[in-house]
Amino acid sequence: MKNFISVNDVDNIDELVSNALAYKANPLLHKHIGKNKRLGLLFLNPSLRTRLSTQIAAENLGMNVIVLNVDKDGWKMEFDDEAIMNGTSVEHIKDAAPILGNYFDVLGVRSFPSFTNKEEDYGELVINQFIKYSNIPIISLESATLHPLQSFTDIITIEESLIHSRIVKPKVVLTWAPHIKPLPQCVSNSFAQWINKWQKAEFVIAHPKGYELDKQFTLNAEIVNNQKEALQNADFVYVKNWSSYNDYGRMLCDDASWMLTEQSLQNTNNAKIMHCLPVRRNVELSGPVLDSSNSLTTTQASNRVWAAQAVISKILQNS
Amino acid sequence: MKNFISVNDVDNIDELVSNALAYKANPLLHKHIGKNKRLGLLFLNPSLRTRLSTQIAAENLGMNVIVLNVDKDGWKMEFDDEAIMNGTSVEHIKDAAPILGNYFDVLGVRSFPSFTNKEEDYGELVINQFIKYSNIPIISLESATLHPLQSFTDIITIEESLIHSRIVKPKVVLTWAPHIKPLPQCVSNSFAQWINKWQKAEFVIAHPKGYELDKQFTLNAEIVNNQKEALQNADFVYVKNWSSYNDYGRMLCDDASWMLTEQSLQNTNNAKIMHCLPVRRNVELSGPVLDSSNSLTTTQASNRVWAAQAVISKILQNS
Amino acid sequence: MKNFISVNDVDNIDELVSNALAYKANPLLHKHIGKNKRLGLLFLNPSLRTRLSTQIAAENLGMNVIVLNVDKDGWKMEFDDEAIMNGTSVEHIKDAAPILGNYFDVLGVRSFPSFTNKEEDYGELVINQFIKYSNIPIISLESATLHPLQSFTDIITIEESLIHSRIVKPKVVLTWAPHIKPLPQCVSNSFAQWINKWQKAEFVIAHPKGYELDKQFTLNAEIVNNQKEALQNADFVYVKNWSSYNDYGRMLCDDASWMLTEQSLQNTNNAKIMHCLPVRRNVELSGPVLDSSNSLTTTQASNRVWAAQAVISKILQNS
Repeated sequence: MKNFISVNDVDNIDELVSNALAYKANPLLHKHIGKNKRLGLLFLNPSLRTRLSTQIAAENLGMNVIVLNVDKDGWKMEFDDEAIMNGTSVEHIKDAAPILGNYFDVLGVRSFPSFTNKEEDYGELVINQFIKYSNIPIISLESATLHPLQSFTDIITIEESLIHSRIVKPKVVLTWAPHIKPLPQCVSNSFAQWINKWQKAEFVIAHPKGYELDKQFTLNAEIVNNQKEALQNADFVYVKNWSSYNDYGRMLCDDASWMLTEQSLQNTNNAKIMHCLPVRRNVELSGPVLDSSNSLTTTQASNRVWAAQAVISKILQNS
Repeated sequence: MKNFISVNDVDNIDELVSNALAYKANPLLHKHIGKNKRLGLLFLNPSLRTRLSTQIAAENLGMNVIVLNVDKDGWKMEFDDEAIMNGTSVEHIKDAAPILGNYFDVLGVRSFPSFTNKEEDYGELVINQFIKYSNIPIISLESATLHPLQSFTDIITIEESLIHSRIVKPKVVLTWAPHIKPLPQCVSNSFAQWINKWQKAEFVIAHPKGYELDKQFTLNAEIVNNQKEALQNADFVYVKNWSSYNDYGRMLCDDASWMLTEQSLQNTNNAKIMHCLPVRRNVELSGPVLDSSNSLTTTQASNRVWAAQAVISKILQNS
Repeated sequence: MKNFISVNDVDNIDELVSNALAYKANPLLHKHIGKNKRLGLLFLNPSLRTRLSTQIAAENLGMNVIVLNVDKDGWKMEFDDEAIMNGTSVEHIKDAAPILGNYFDVLGVRSFPSFTNKEEDYGELVINQFIKYSNIPIISLESATLHPLQSFTDIITIEESLIHSRIVKPKVVLTWAPHIKPLPQCVSNSFAQWINKWQKAEFVIAHPKGYELDKQFTLNAEIVNNQKEALQNADFVYVKNWSSYNDYGRMLCDDASWMLTEQSLQNTNNAKIMHCLPVRRNVELSGPVLDSSNSLTTTQASNRVWAAQAVISKILQNS
C-alpha cells in the first residue's frame, strides 16, 4: 500500500480486517517494524479520536510520532499552485511538503472541506497536493470527501459483531440524522464506498429529499426517503448527519423526526447502532439509544487503533 | 490506589512522601514498571508545571504519555447527563470517556470550576463523570475544588525542609493574598485538607472576613482575620489568593496590605515561604520575598515530578 | 558549548559543519548520548520547521523531548524584573525559569521581537532572562535579533553545494525582498554574522535605502542599493524581507521590482537561490524561481535537522 486515501487503496478488505483483529488481540505483535521510522500527524482541523488512536497505533509498531496542529502551532497553508501570496496564507504546500517528506517516513493529514468550492473539495485538492509534493506515503485522517480510517473501523466492527451471529447477509442502513450545523459528507460517502466494495451487506441509505450523496460512492445502494421504511428488518443502523451534496454544503431539513429513538428501532432486527462520534445527544440520536447495549459506538472508536495499526503496518512493509 | 482525587485516596501520607523522596534521589528507580502502559493527560484548562511534571514523572516510570488540550486540539465537552446537545458542546463525556478508557491505562484530568454553579463545582461534576464513565484510574491535575498533586508536593517540601531543623511541630500559616481576578479555592481547600490529615502541624488560616473556606476542608484549623497576628512565630507561610466560597466566586477585598512583604515576616520564626505558582509578583508577594533564600517555591514546583511519580507508581502497582 | 545563541558560541564553524554532515550521513550515529536527558522546546511564537527539526534532532540523539506552546498551553510570561504584575502577564520568568531548569537538561526557546521597544529587543531581554534564571544550556530557536540554527543550516547548505564545484570564493548576495507586513531582522542579521565569521565568501547585501541592518552584524559587507548591480556574478542569492532597523520595525518600501524573478537572475553565475521559509510565493520570489532546480530551499530546511543535531550534541558533550 502506497497511500491510504480511500478504499481504492485496499487490495483485500478481508485481509486488512484480519490484520486489524490480530493487532487487537496482541497490540505489540509487531512492535519493532516501525523502529527508527517517524510518523507526522498534521491537523488542519480539530480531532480527538483520530489524533489519539493513530498515535497509539504507530507507537504500538515502534514508530516515533510527532503531532502538529498546522494552523495553531504554525500558520495557514496555501494550496493553490498559482497563488500570489499577499493574503492570509503564509506558506505554500509546494514549499512545505517536500520538507515534511524529508522529516518523516509517513504523513497523516486531516483537512475538512472548505464548503466554498465544491469542485476543489471533491477534487480533494489538499490531500492530493500533499501526495504530489511530499514524496512519502500519505494517510488520510479525514479529507474533504472521505474518512477511510473511520469506514475501515466500521467494517471491522460489523465483522466482529457478526462473528457469533447467524446473520448471513446483514441489512445495513445508513440513515441521515438532524444536526445544528452543516457537516461534510465524508463519513457517509466513505461508509457507502467501503460497504459497496465489501459486498457482504444489503445496503440501504435513508435521507430526506435533497440529501442525495454523490453517486460515485453510493453506486447501486437502495435510496429511500422514508426512515421508517428503511429501518424495517435492519441489522445495523449507521446514523449520521450530512449537508446537501447537490445544493452544496447547505442544510435543507431540520425535521426532528429523523432523530433516531428507541421507537424508530422497533421494526428492526434488534439492530446494532453505529455512529462515528462526536455525536450530538438528543439531536442526532436519543440518549437511551446511545446508552443501550446495542450501541456499538465505543467499540467503533476503540477499533480505530487497530484499523490505523493495520494500515500503517501495511504501508511500512511496502516502503 | 484506584484514583487520586483527594487526600482521601491516600492510605498513608508518610509512606507516599517517602516514595516520592526515593524517586527524587533516583528518578529511574522504577523505569520499567510503566512499560507498555499509556497515560493520557487531558487539559480542559491551561497548565505549565502540572503538564510538564506529570509527563516527566510518567516517562521516568517508562510509560508512554499523550497530552491533549481537549478544547483546543478537539472540542467542547458536555457533562450534563440529560443535555439536549443543540448548543456549543460537541461531545458528551458519556460517549468520550469509555473510549479514552480503552485508549489509555491511566487518565489525568485538569478542569477548573465554572464559577457559575457552586453545587456542580463542589459536587466535582467533571472529574466524577470521568471516573464514572472511563473505567480506568483517574488522577486529578486540579479539579473544581481540589489540587491534590500540589498539596502532596507541599507536604513533601515541608517534610524535606524539616529534616535538618529542630522544629518539632511547625506552625503552618495559610494566608490569603490579593489578586487581580477571582481564583478558585482549590489550592487552599486542598492544602487545608492535606495538612489536617497529615496532623504534624499547628495550622492557622488567615483571611479577610468573607473569605471563609468550606469547613469540610478546614475542619478545626484556627481561623484569624488579622494577618499580622496569624504570622506570629510562623515556621511556614503559604501565600495564596482565593475568591469567596460563601459569596461564590466573588472578590470581596482588594486590600493591598495583605500582600506578603519582608515586613510582614518580621515576627515569624524565620519562616519559609510557599506558593503554588504562578504568582503575581508585587501583587500577592513582593519580589524580595520571592527572591529570598527562604522562598521554597522552586523546590515545591520541582518536587511536583516526584509527587506525581509516587502517585502514578502507586496506581500502576494496584492496577 | 554552553549556550547556542549566536555564532559567537561557536569555536569552529568548519568542525560544526562537519559534525552536521556526519549526522546527515548517519542520523543515529550517536543515538545514546542523549539517553535519559530531556529537551524542552518552548515556543512563545509559532513555528513549523524549527519545532519539527529540533525535536527530530534531539530524538536522533536519544533524548526525550517535550514541546510547550507557552502562551497557548500555559499563559503569558513577564520578563521585566521590576514588574508589578497586575496586568495580562501571569508568571514571571524569574519564577518559571529555575523550575524549567530543574525539569529539563537543555532548553530551546523561540521568542520574536516585540517591535515596541528596540532597546529591549536588541538587548535580547527574553532569551537573556532564560539564560540568567534557568541554570541550564539555552538554545535559541530564533530570538529577537538572531536565528543561529537557520544561519548554521545555511552555511551547511552552501558548503554542501560547493563540494563538487570549482568555485573558490563564492559571491554570496543577501537581498531584501518585498513582503506584506513588517518582519524581524533576525534571519538577515544572523546570516550576515555567520557569513562574516565563516570568511569564505565575498559578501554583498542589497536593499532599498532605509533598510540598513545593524552594523554589529554586517561589519564590512558591501552594501548596495541596486539589486541588479548586486546580483552580477552572484553564486548564491539569499532572499529575505526585513523591516527597517533604523526606523525600527517599519515598512518603508513596497517596490515589487525587488521581487526575485528569473529575469533578476540573468546576470548571476547560475546562482543557487536560498530562503529560510516560510516564503510568500510571487511576493518575495516568483514561483518559477522557487520551483527551479537552482532553488536550495528544501535542502536548507531539511538540513535544519542536522544543524540542530550537531548543536545539541555539542552541548550534551560539554555538560
